[in-house]
Amino acid sequence: MRRIRLRVAYDGTRYCGWQMQNNGPTVEGELHKALTQVLGADVALTGASRTDAGVHSLGNIAIFDTDSRIPADKFCYALNQWLPDDIIIQESDEVPPNWHPRKQKSRKTYEYRILNRHMPDPTRRLDTHFYYRPLDVEKMRQAASYLEGEHDFTSFASVHMTVPTAVRTIYSCTVEKKDDIITIRVCGSGFLYNMVRIIAGTLIEVGTGAREPEDILRILEAKDREEAGPTAPARGLTMIGIVFGDVSQ
Amino acid sequence: MRRIRLRVAYDGTRYCGWQMQNNGPTVEGELHKALTQVLGADVALTGASRTDAGVHSLGNIAIFDTDSRIPADKFCYALNQWLPDDIIIQESDEVPPNWHPRKQKSRKTYEYRILNRHMPDPTRRLDTHFYYRPLDVEKMRQAASYLEGEHDFTSFASVHMTVPTAVRTIYSCTVEKKDDIITIRVCGSGFLYNMVRIIAGTLIEVGTGAREPEDILRILEAKDREEAGPTAPARGLTMIGIVFGDVSQ
Repeated sequence: MRRIRLRVAYDGTRYCGWQMQNNGPTVEGELHKALTQVLGADVALTGASRTDAGVHSLGNIAIFDTDSRIPADKFCYALNQWLPDDIIIQESDEVPPNWHPRKQKSRKTYEYRILNRHMPDPTRRLDTHFYYRPLDVEKMRQAASYLEGEHDFTSFASVHMTVPTAVRTIYSCTVEKKDDIITIRVCGSGFLYNMVRIIAGTLIEVGTGAREPEDILRILEAKDREEAGPTAPARGLTMIGIVFGDVSQ
Repeated sequence: MRRIRLRVAYDGTRYCGWQMQNNGPTVEGELHKALTQVLGADVALTGASRTDAGVHSLGNIAIFDTDSRIPADKFCYALNQWLPDDIIIQESDEVPPNWHPRKQKSRKTYEYRILNRHMPDPTRRLDTHFYYRPLDVEKMRQAASYLEGEHDFTSFASVHMTVPTAVRTIYSCTVEKKDDIITIRVCGSGFLYNMVRIIAGTLIEVGTGAREPEDILRILEAKDREEAGPTAPARGLTMIGIVFGDVSQ
């Protein structure tokens, strides 16, 4: 039995998120169908990140076990033959049989993109959040810097969060503007439910002047979801990738 | 009677091009429907550029005449209420009654984007042409420079071209690479049918090494469509905008 790892990119627009469910199509569901075609058997998949409905990814990670003799690095081509064109495996390789994407240290990077202009741009509607009012990027950048480090992020997590601790480390949180797109890039040890989207919603409020950058310190301190800004829409969020501490760089 | 001008952006993926026809939805058709809702009357539209099926635009121009008392700069908001989210009017203004977008000097700018990487990126599938083999951007840039100036572009036009002369002026043709996207940007006095897509298809062949940059000179000279490369797919093409010589900058 070999354990195969996939790096999966997708446009999440059409999907009810990563995880298989009965409400509609999911990324995991499409992968499972393709895997069933390639292997001729029903094989369980495990994903690194259960992204929400409408969220995109350039590099989510999934594993499965198989006795198939297909070379590990060829699985991506075999699966892409069966996948819809909004899901593409970027690469596949073999990992040790006990390797698990959620049971080891990793750094995850997300980007939240805001289209900040007078009118929506239809060619960017699927992967940006359109925001009409001008945003002060310098203030957003300052606010973002207060999120860096180890903190209890209870204020920046959905109240539906179920994990035992909300302490996470953000290695970096930067804000860049190019043309009319503002990109919030967050790299961290792990993220709570809706955390990046609540960070984005809060930084947007800083950008409009409704909050000051220093408010971030008070919001963190409060450990209360009510103190932070709204959850920004899923379409602006893209999971960029994961770096694992032990087996890959 | 006032003449109103619209600057129209669209994601062309779902459309059979700009011009109304019976085969399926068109950008002009959607605009016409929205205009009928806003004005309560059937009003004819005239577009500057009849973009093909699958081609995008950030700034196509359309005009119509009306007695409506809606302020000229408010038409964009009124129409956007009725338009699907892949067509957005960027702005509207009033022009002189004899102003016509196809009957005066103008500079049109198009971009052709090539996604040049190992695997397709599903988040960029709608507005780039995925090309697997590595492309030599420096050679493409050199080839592009030979297209600049006034030339007979018969070799770079569809054989279905119906205009009396194929002489056009290309003010600039540049090739830039950022991350894994190569952008060919062409600015000219006007373009023949499929011209930018044939330029892109030919520059791709230069990028692979199948042709040399200097071949462009011979291709222009031949005045024969057979001499140029293939027509690159529509999805990579975006009309960026038009600058008119007289009424706007």
